[in-house]
Amino acid sequence: MSAPLTPHEALRIEAGARRAVQEVLAEESAVALLFNGEAHAVLMASPVDLEDLAIGFALSEGIVARSDELRVMEIIEGERGHSLHLAIPDANAAALATRRRSLVAGSGCGLCGLEALDAALRPIRRVAEGPPVGAAQLREAMARLPALQPLNAACGSLHAAAALLPDGSLLVREDVGRHNALDKLIGALAREGSTARAVLMSSRASFELVHKAAEAGIGLLATVSGPTALAVRLADEAGLCLVGFARDERLTVYAGAARLKD
Amino acid sequence: MSAPLTPHEALRIEAGARRAVQEVLAEESAVALLFNGEAHAVLMASPVDLEDLAIGFALSEGIVARSDELRVMEIIEGERGHSLHLAIPDANAAALATRRRSLVAGSGCGLCGLEALDAALRPIRRVAEGPPVGAAQLREAMARLPALQPLNAACGSLHAAAALLPDGSLLVREDVGRHNALDKLIGALAREGSTARAVLMSSRASFELVHKAAEAGIGLLATVSGPTALAVRLADEAGLCLVGFARDERLTVYAGAARLKD
Repeated sequence: MSAPLTPHEALRIEAGARRAVQEVLAEESAVALLFNGEAHAVLMASPVDLEDLAIGFALSEGIVARSDELRVMEIIEGERGHSLHLAIPDANAAALATRRRSLVAGSGCGLCGLEALDAALRPIRRVAEGPPVGAAQLREAMARLPALQPLNAACGSLHAAAALLPDGSLLVREDVGRHNALDKLIGALAREGSTARAVLMSSRASFELVHKAAEAGIGLLATVSGPTALAVRLADEAGLCLVGFARDERLTVYAGAARLKD
Repeated sequence: MSAPLTPHEALRIEAGARRAVQEVLAEESAVALLFNGEAHAVLMASPVDLEDLAIGFALSEGIVARSDELRVMEIIEGERGHSLHLAIPDANAAALATRRRSLVAGSGCGLCGLEALDAALRPIRRVAEGPPVGAAQLREAMARLPALQPLNAACGSLHAAAALLPDGSLLVREDVGRHNALDKLIGALAREGSTARAVLMSSRASFELVHKAAEAGIGLLATVSGPTALAVRLADEAGLCLVGFARDERLTVYAGAARLKD
């Protein structure tokens, strides 16, 4: 598989002087996901942990309900990117085809806009109750995260998603895209049969991250930056604890505070 | 139109103490773009400057070549988001339908993955030669940008795209998404008949930002954070000057240094 980082000679202009500098850049590779031979999506992702990405995407998008419903048949690397050939049960493939058609309706009536909006804003799944997580433990885990981001340490432009496991350790996945980082983490958790007590992210919280987390049964999502209003409404709806600005000695809780204890 | 910001009562946990705090959140609204009655895309965007967004998206995605080829017929706000009804020439609509079909090919063969990859990585347009921009002028413009981001000042989670105009002033658009912010700016420039000497962005540089900038004829793109490797390769191919880490007294030039003078 191609490397996730690439050296590049750049030009630094500082205090009026120019000099050549060696920079390390993050690769951004096109990754086509094909379910039962049908292209479903092209993601722009860091080309590492692509099996995790495939499984996590299928779970977080509700394409399969359990990871054993999906098999990674083949990963083909070409000049233009990676093609991931995935096999799912026929019923799931049929449901996916229906969803795809509704996104490109094209029936020529004004309704298709609404159908497209509905498809984009699918209902969110309610997260099961779980034991609360300590605020101090969450802050401490967030403080440990930067040291567990080796790709980001080298180039400064990757996001990380980390699962706080029941034994207190962190499972981390990195990607140029925050949504991919979360999907990779969800896939890695499923493959290892692990449960996350909380998921920590180095980014802001969009509605899509909350949606993916709820679909994967994650009860607490903490992000370094803030959430959008829609992310907060969805977290409320799902009963998910949403924490923002989790940095330094501070946490801000936007929804589901009952899942967080002092 | 709904407001781009929403107040929210959150819970702050700091040094072990909890207290209620009033936060301001950025709205993230589903925006469906319909060309000649056919739904093409749903963007999650800040619900401001939606006409700019529609025109800029159509230009930066190569759906139309000139802004006068597109008319905004109607903007409908519903519970689930906004539907933008846009009219384009029949030939453009036919080309768009072909592109959309190639993205959801579904011919059941392994090739569709490659077709999807091709559609995602469309060829980039070469940018016309233009007068170089001064490094000092670029740094100074970047320093002025934060004061011109009123929405971000209120909530801290919006990106900005700014055009450095020939008279030295900055035209700014904000959005929760960096790609939307650039599309809004491209739309605003087209509507005002203005040309950007450079475009400044508060974000990282993805390949998509470079692609959109080149399609809109922008010769210099400067971002606060770094670019991906693919963004640099595309900038090279397009002859676009790509500057990263444009902050403090520093600029790092990744491609097209000839467009930047001391």
